Amino acid sequence: MTVNLPLPQKDQLKPVKGFQMGIAQAGIKKANRKDLLVMTLVPGSQVAGVFTLNRFCAAPVQVCREHLAQNGERGEILALVVNTGNANAGTGEQGMKDALATCKALAQDLKLNPEQILPFSTGVILEPLPIEKIINNLPKAVADLDEDHWLDAAQAIMTTDTQPKASSVTVQTSSGPVTMTGICKGAGMIHPNMATMLGFIAMDAGFAPGLLAALTREVADLSFNAITIDGDTSTNDSFIVMATGQATVDIQSVDDENYSLVRKALITLAQQLAKMIVRDGEGATKFITINVGGGKTVQECRLVAEAVAHSPLVKTAFFASDPNLGRILAAIGYAGIADLDVNQVQMWLGDVWVAKDGGRNPDYQEADGQRVMQTSEITVKIDLGRGSAQQTMWTCDLSHEYVSINADYRS
Amino acid sequence: MTVNLPLPQKDQLKPVKGFQMGIAQAGIKKANRKDLLVMTLVPGSQVAGVFTLNRFCAAPVQVCREHLAQNGERGEILALVVNTGNANAGTGEQGMKDALATCKALAQDLKLNPEQILPFSTGVILEPLPIEKIINNLPKAVADLDEDHWLDAAQAIMTTDTQPKASSVTVQTSSGPVTMTGICKGAGMIHPNMATMLGFIAMDAGFAPGLLAALTREVADLSFNAITIDGDTSTNDSFIVMATGQATVDIQSVDDENYSLVRKALITLAQQLAKMIVRDGEGATKFITINVGGGKTVQECRLVAEAVAHSPLVKTAFFASDPNLGRILAAIGYAGIADLDVNQVQMWLGDVWVAKDGGRNPDYQEADGQRVMQTSEITVKIDLGRGSAQQTMWTCDLSHEYVSINADYRS
Repeated sequence: MTVNLPLPQKDQLKPVKGFQMGIAQAGIKKANRKDLLVMTLVPGSQVAGVFTLNRFCAAPVQVCREHLAQNGERGEILALVVNTGNANAGTGEQGMKDALATCKALAQDLKLNPEQILPFSTGVILEPLPIEKIINNLPKAVADLDEDHWLDAAQAIMTTDTQPKASSVTVQTSSGPVTMTGICKGAGMIHPNMATMLGFIAMDAGFAPGLLAALTREVADLSFNAITIDGDTSTNDSFIVMATGQATVDIQSVDDENYSLVRKALITLAQQLAKMIVRDGEGATKFITINVGGGKTVQECRLVAEAVAHSPLVKTAFFASDPNLGRILAAIGYAGIADLDVNQVQMWLGDVWVAKDGGRNPDYQEADGQRVMQTSEITVKIDLGRGSAQQTMWTCDLSHEYVSINADYRS
Repeated sequence: MTVNLPLPQKDQLKPVKGFQMGIAQAGIKKANRKDLLVMTLVPGSQVAGVFTLNRFCAAPVQVCREHLAQNGERGEILALVVNTGNANAGTGEQGMKDALATCKALAQDLKLNPEQILPFSTGVILEPLPIEKIINNLPKAVADLDEDHWLDAAQAIMTTDTQPKASSVTVQTSSGPVTMTGICKGAGMIHPNMATMLGFIAMDAGFAPGLLAALTREVADLSFNAITIDGDTSTNDSFIVMATGQATVDIQSVDDENYSLVRKALITLAQQLAKMIVRDGEGATKFITINVGGGKTVQECRLVAEAVAHSPLVKTAFFASDPNLGRILAAIGYAGIADLDVNQVQMWLGDVWVAKDGGRNPDYQEADGQRVMQTSEITVKIDLGRGSAQQTMWTCDLSHEYVSINADYRS
């Protein structure tokens, strides 16, 4: 059950020079399933990441943060390793040892230092990582390394996702083309058992040290941090951007004429990937865009968008195709803008002007709202009437299927 | 579908001297249904209230706030009027006129000033209040006034509640007994169409002007503000405490020897009523107590309790009787305590110690967690290990029925 989510086609996923992927079946949780992914980068690649703010973050997230701080800008992060089937979260000291042991084993296979490797895990939590299975199968993944394995990589990081998620974008700059390809997984921001949102994007442009970290944070806020299925933040969420520097384009500063072009393409790609997670959201039957404008700050627009996107009442109304618009107004009202003048608030459902100056638009007909509600792609536009800031979020509805998936998962 | 919620019995609901209730059937939304309630107080009664913080608050809430500020401590709020079937919210200027017209009509019937009356509405929003029906039926409600009409009053304020909610407490003080009786409605904190949590408590003790407002806020935070069904805050939520001063007990200050006795009884009664709302929560099959201790501040304990209580993942796990404990840890982790040391966190499910020092308790057996999860009354105890503050919240699970009720309400 996905919402307008086509399967990625292998020939649409462009190789990124200097970036390879190798896959293995390690039998971590189930047999005969791609569950181990190794990715490698040419020396000199810039790597940046954004990680979960959850205080119960998983051991690999802690290791990632450290290795990235040490080596991400020095061009010395040269490999990544991802296992599914086990999140290595809530695993205490042993979890940390296992994450480091994974790095050490892959370092030996690739003749690197363990600090040059970023580890990722996703799957069930509170269970020890089957470290032997991982270590024993790393050589198989390494032997499989190839620039053309994007679709396999997308499949290898899936947990409850019903479809692999991957996309490519190419942008022409004054110094030549830049190719970027990305994969992600999520199926509900969260997987029933605290798996993860994982996102990886590689591009062949070069970046001067220090440029990529700020850009990655900005892109994350506009993409993976702008989607929500159920508001739960996982212990393992990670988003990594890598730049191999193998193209003719080399960006030295944000003032570089090509920076904004590459930035824009990266935002486009990250948003495409992020929206795929919503379209494959647990139980999703509708894809909903919430566009909040007229705010004093982006932050307050975000508060309103999140309040609407998280409201179970709003989400069940979308599921029922019921234009129950008071629920959206109420969510705006409790979003946390203490001095909001509700008489300035306007709200549209698709092209239908529903709430005018804080009350029901006299021209609004319920049949018009009903018509919009019955479509599978719905935009809610809210104008707070107090400034020019704006923020867009994407979410899905709350269905019986969501309850079933999350109630029945382990039984 | 309620969770261990007995029907209130008429003879258990004690009259409060100086406080009368009268009920009418005004046909506001449906015929042959008690939907209009008038309550009167003897002159000199102290009245205090706590109202929704939703910026889209309903017209009657705004009128209540004004009249209460004017007359609540002066002993001149002498009547309240509640209609169900229509929330008079999202109704703009006309809504305000209608709320004031209701006060004016009742003032004429009772020979009071309109400013001596508090109006309340609950029901559908974004629809004009059928003001004629209300005004025409106020005399019937007035003719029905009686100190013994508590059960009828509880029935008259119901919307999607499946049962009336009422309770009485009597406390012995050194100056004689104090009787307090209360009613409330909620059925989900929110009703599908943004009705309301309404709570009214009357007691016969006397209070010096100014004492009751602070006490009412404190009691609300420990009762009606400590419950959640789905995290949505309605446009009409109101909680009113009234003291008629007809008993022999007269409290002059917080240092009065009887103040703490009366305070404690009031908290007990308000918590009884608040828990009834959870037990009748939309789709509820489990009653869940979340007790967070060991915090530096009450506020941070509340953040954690709310994060756990609002998590759809946690709530569906309770519905499924699945001891999926990582979900609770994850909610603790994202609750917003930036410097939380997760290695200090302990968590119990009922009497079973599940998470020890931030990880799985080595002695924990899933069968023990399963045993607790299968009961209908579950306590989650969390120790943050960083202080002595604590906060308790009550909530229910998230079931298929919740989605059905809220998705199907208007179709």
